[in-house]
Amino acid sequence: MHKVIFDTDPGVDDAMALLFLHQHPEIELLGITTIFGNAAIETTTRNALYLKQEWQISAPVAQGIGETIDPARPHVGWPTFIHGDDGLGNIGVPQTVTGSPDPRPAHRFLIDTIRAHPGEITLVAVGRMTNLARALNDDPQIATLVKQVVIMGGAFDVPGNITPAAEANIHGDPEAADIVFGAAWPVVAVGLDVTMQTVMSRSQLAAIAERGGERPALLARISDFYIDFYGRLVEDGMVVHDSCACVYVVAPELFTLRHGAIRTVCGGIADGQTIQKPDSRSFPPSAWDGLPSQSVCTGIDSAAVLALIDETLSRRPG
Amino acid sequence: MHKVIFDTDPGVDDAMALLFLHQHPEIELLGITTIFGNAAIETTTRNALYLKQEWQISAPVAQGIGETIDPARPHVGWPTFIHGDDGLGNIGVPQTVTGSPDPRPAHRFLIDTIRAHPGEITLVAVGRMTNLARALNDDPQIATLVKQVVIMGGAFDVPGNITPAAEANIHGDPEAADIVFGAAWPVVAVGLDVTMQTVMSRSQLAAIAERGGERPALLARISDFYIDFYGRLVEDGMVVHDSCACVYVVAPELFTLRHGAIRTVCGGIADGQTIQKPDSRSFPPSAWDGLPSQSVCTGIDSAAVLALIDETLSRRPG
Repeated sequence: MHKVIFDTDPGVDDAMALLFLHQHPEIELLGITTIFGNAAIETTTRNALYLKQEWQISAPVAQGIGETIDPARPHVGWPTFIHGDDGLGNIGVPQTVTGSPDPRPAHRFLIDTIRAHPGEITLVAVGRMTNLARALNDDPQIATLVKQVVIMGGAFDVPGNITPAAEANIHGDPEAADIVFGAAWPVVAVGLDVTMQTVMSRSQLAAIAERGGERPALLARISDFYIDFYGRLVEDGMVVHDSCACVYVVAPELFTLRHGAIRTVCGGIADGQTIQKPDSRSFPPSAWDGLPSQSVCTGIDSAAVLALIDETLSRRPG
Repeated sequence: MHKVIFDTDPGVDDAMALLFLHQHPEIELLGITTIFGNAAIETTTRNALYLKQEWQISAPVAQGIGETIDPARPHVGWPTFIHGDDGLGNIGVPQTVTGSPDPRPAHRFLIDTIRAHPGEITLVAVGRMTNLARALNDDPQIATLVKQVVIMGGAFDVPGNITPAAEANIHGDPEAADIVFGAAWPVVAVGLDVTMQTVMSRSQLAAIAERGGERPALLARISDFYIDFYGRLVEDGMVVHDSCACVYVVAPELFTLRHGAIRTVCGGIADGQTIQKPDSRSFPPSAWDGLPSQSVCTGIDSAAVLALIDETLSRRPG
């Protein structure tokens, strides 16, 4: 079993990823920590609680602090044109839901849970890296106590999505990403290099809802708005960014990795860009020296990843 | 016929490119402008005059100013481990050579020659972009009078060579590159994405020298040191960076292009990185807006490029 804490900003593709983690038989979901990005922190937390309620998820939800690591960084605005005004595809999420968040802020929940399960926790982080960086700042030793960190973020050999240089999760808090990549825990970056080619069609999602019942049916309703947006980029379907990171946890053999230190550009026109120094190459002294070698996904078996998502989301609660 | 001015910092692969331009029957070489980079400006100019003398090149040599566009940019040191102390593979280039440079500085020579042949000149620039940027600063209208600019420089979807982010020519004067890419002349960037896979073996170069006589025989002697260096990266042979840009002039069909505005990062860890915003993608407002669409080589028929270089260098002076 993989003990997972899911750091997320639901978010439409976040919702699919959450259902995958909840339903995969080899994953034990120990907690959901929320971060802002796809929507404001109050909205993403409300959405996490709503999905927890609708899908009968037992794991607690802990709310992150709604501020980047560098509080001077200007705020850019929420991508309501992708995730809807309610962050879940404008399905009309109720303003109030049953259940309330854990009393601890997300970074404290992360520290406590990691320390309670030394060497066992996989962090799956699919939003800005703020909560993870804050946890590292408060308790640097957790880097040695985590099994691995799998993030959805970055654009390495491909253009970004929010700027030509940067992917949105990293761009939302570049200083936090630089802290996370620079820490002595193993990080696997599942970025646009592999997620953009991993597209679930609207019809496949409908078929899953048909087989899987209420849970994926809600997911399909949530996803319609997002699929309409992505119609500009891909054939009628959804880019399953966040689910790719979750699949990595249980099926890493479906990915090709490149190893090397990763830095995040902070400021300037390349703000939020992720740059890896491949271990296979040598360079004069550079800003990458002395940092841990991390892993970047450069290849993916998209068909197999989609098949595993399909199988997992189609499982009816037993 | 293609009227070409060659902006260069010889430099071993520069020497091969110069011989290609000199010997290709469809190229008329109107001038050689020198820039610092592979060695100091006095050395690269001396080397250009030496090759002009040895290869009976009639085109004049005009010396560039030995300073980056932003004079505050710190100097890094010459790559003598790649090009030798003399910039030509330690063959023992004589300290003084016959002939002397044009009295005009390189950027003035560029302006005058472009204005003398409006719409006809192809600039092939294979060093730092300093001379071109200085010419644009002094006479912005030349951007509308040049046929095209073909540069060897940049690393777009691949790591750099002087840092994980940056290719050496661009890194040597990023502010100059940003000026050149931003001007209203058509620029084709032949960068590491295509040059690193275009390797002429030591034995092929020896065979060319066998067939082509004294001129390529000198080139082969010059290249030995460089091939020894590149042995760390490629099988016994030389990466023909600069010749790729020259081949583009006469055989653009051997390259795949991607179109879009290009910016150069100035400062920070990504200093000198080149980033293209593909025209095929849309982004929120960004630092790429309003700039001309330029071309980046993303693919190359390396075998055909090498064959054309082979054929051209093997031609005996008629």
